[in-house]
Amino acid sequence: MMSRRFPEAAAVGVGGFVRDDTPTEQVDRREAVVASLAGTVRDLVDATIRTTLGDAELHRIRDDLAAVVDRLRAGQLPGPAGIRYNSERRSWNWGNAVMGAANALAPPLDVVHDASGCHADVDLGAAYEGPPGLVHGGVSAMLLDHIMGETASAMRRTTFTGTLTTRYRRGTPLGPLRLEASIVREEGRKVFVAGSIADADGVTVEAEGVFIQPAGAPAADG
Amino acid sequence: MMSRRFPEAAAVGVGGFVRDDTPTEQVDRREAVVASLAGTVRDLVDATIRTTLGDAELHRIRDDLAAVVDRLRAGQLPGPAGIRYNSERRSWNWGNAVMGAANALAPPLDVVHDASGCHADVDLGAAYEGPPGLVHGGVSAMLLDHIMGETASAMRRTTFTGTLTTRYRRGTPLGPLRLEASIVREEGRKVFVAGSIADADGVTVEAEGVFIQPAGAPAADG
Repeated sequence: MMSRRFPEAAAVGVGGFVRDDTPTEQVDRREAVVASLAGTVRDLVDATIRTTLGDAELHRIRDDLAAVVDRLRAGQLPGPAGIRYNSERRSWNWGNAVMGAANALAPPLDVVHDASGCHADVDLGAAYEGPPGLVHGGVSAMLLDHIMGETASAMRRTTFTGTLTTRYRRGTPLGPLRLEASIVREEGRKVFVAGSIADADGVTVEAEGVFIQPAGAPAADG
Repeated sequence: MMSRRFPEAAAVGVGGFVRDDTPTEQVDRREAVVASLAGTVRDLVDATIRTTLGDAELHRIRDDLAAVVDRLRAGQLPGPAGIRYNSERRSWNWGNAVMGAANALAPPLDVVHDASGCHADVDLGAAYEGPPGLVHGGVSAMLLDHIMGETASAMRRTTFTGTLTTRYRRGTPLGPLRLEASIVREEGRKVFVAGSIADADGVTVEAEGVFIQPAGAPAADG
């Protein structure tokens, strides 16, 4: 099944659910290193969007950054990061678009599992803008899909998004936001989840989703 | 209305729909410069996710990048980029999360308006991963929200997302993808739009959305 769905990844041996027997302590240490690097890349993304420097200086900066890219290219995974797990059931997906520690595109979302489901506090900057001063509606949908998927998986099973419906009550301002999600009900392999985004004045976006448990997949984060 | 909806942005004088009388030719030239810089930052995001270099070298790279961030911080907009437009009706939103030329988080999506609506070809790399080897479900929703919003606005009016429903038929592989969207019908201020994502084997995700035209807003991209 892996080779049918992820032919290129399977061909290079990455991009799947990969058993990796690095001890948890060493995984945690490495995670801190890549998270620190990605944090600086995230600053760079923001500083690039907001730059007012002259063209000549921006060309010099681009060339300096291209040299850093070359240094990183000296040692690279041949494909996407995939999801790794060790025998202690520690799993890590540092490339994930929403919560990956090594991915500067991810805010990253730090999802907390609580008694009623999941929540996450996030502070979205200039990189997540759609309408002026507001979070891009697509970014809101992306973050909701992720936290609702994590809620559906409940740290014990794999789920994929079946259907996601997002309702925009008003514009979501850039800045500090709270995401929440909880399981509404379950029917066979379907898990129904409700979610929301709120600013200090209340809910800005609400969502409902149906998440599907595939037959026979290993446990991992969505 | 601006100051009520975007209080912080209005306070610093950015982040709104800003009239900026830079001539179009100069805007185009500057766009090429920031797009070139952002393209290299995008390479850096990918190379960071896929790095296998040792911890010490990653710390050195982080410090070198922090110095580049400092150089960029020497001249910055005080807030998000917002949307600018000149008297020739050229508008630019280089910070946009999905199509912003200066935003390394954006693929960026290059939306083409055609006879039946909009389409876009995009090639998603490691930074957009969710399940192993597959596009994050939230990324699919984000891209669909954007192209469907652009379709609703039809290059002549502002629209905001009201409701977006995304249906996942199967996993979307990382790599080359085609997005399409078209207007289904209009009712008063509501525009109903259908959209899809497809790989070489056909549609992987389909969506329907209701987009709302606010009263009295200037024309701009979503």
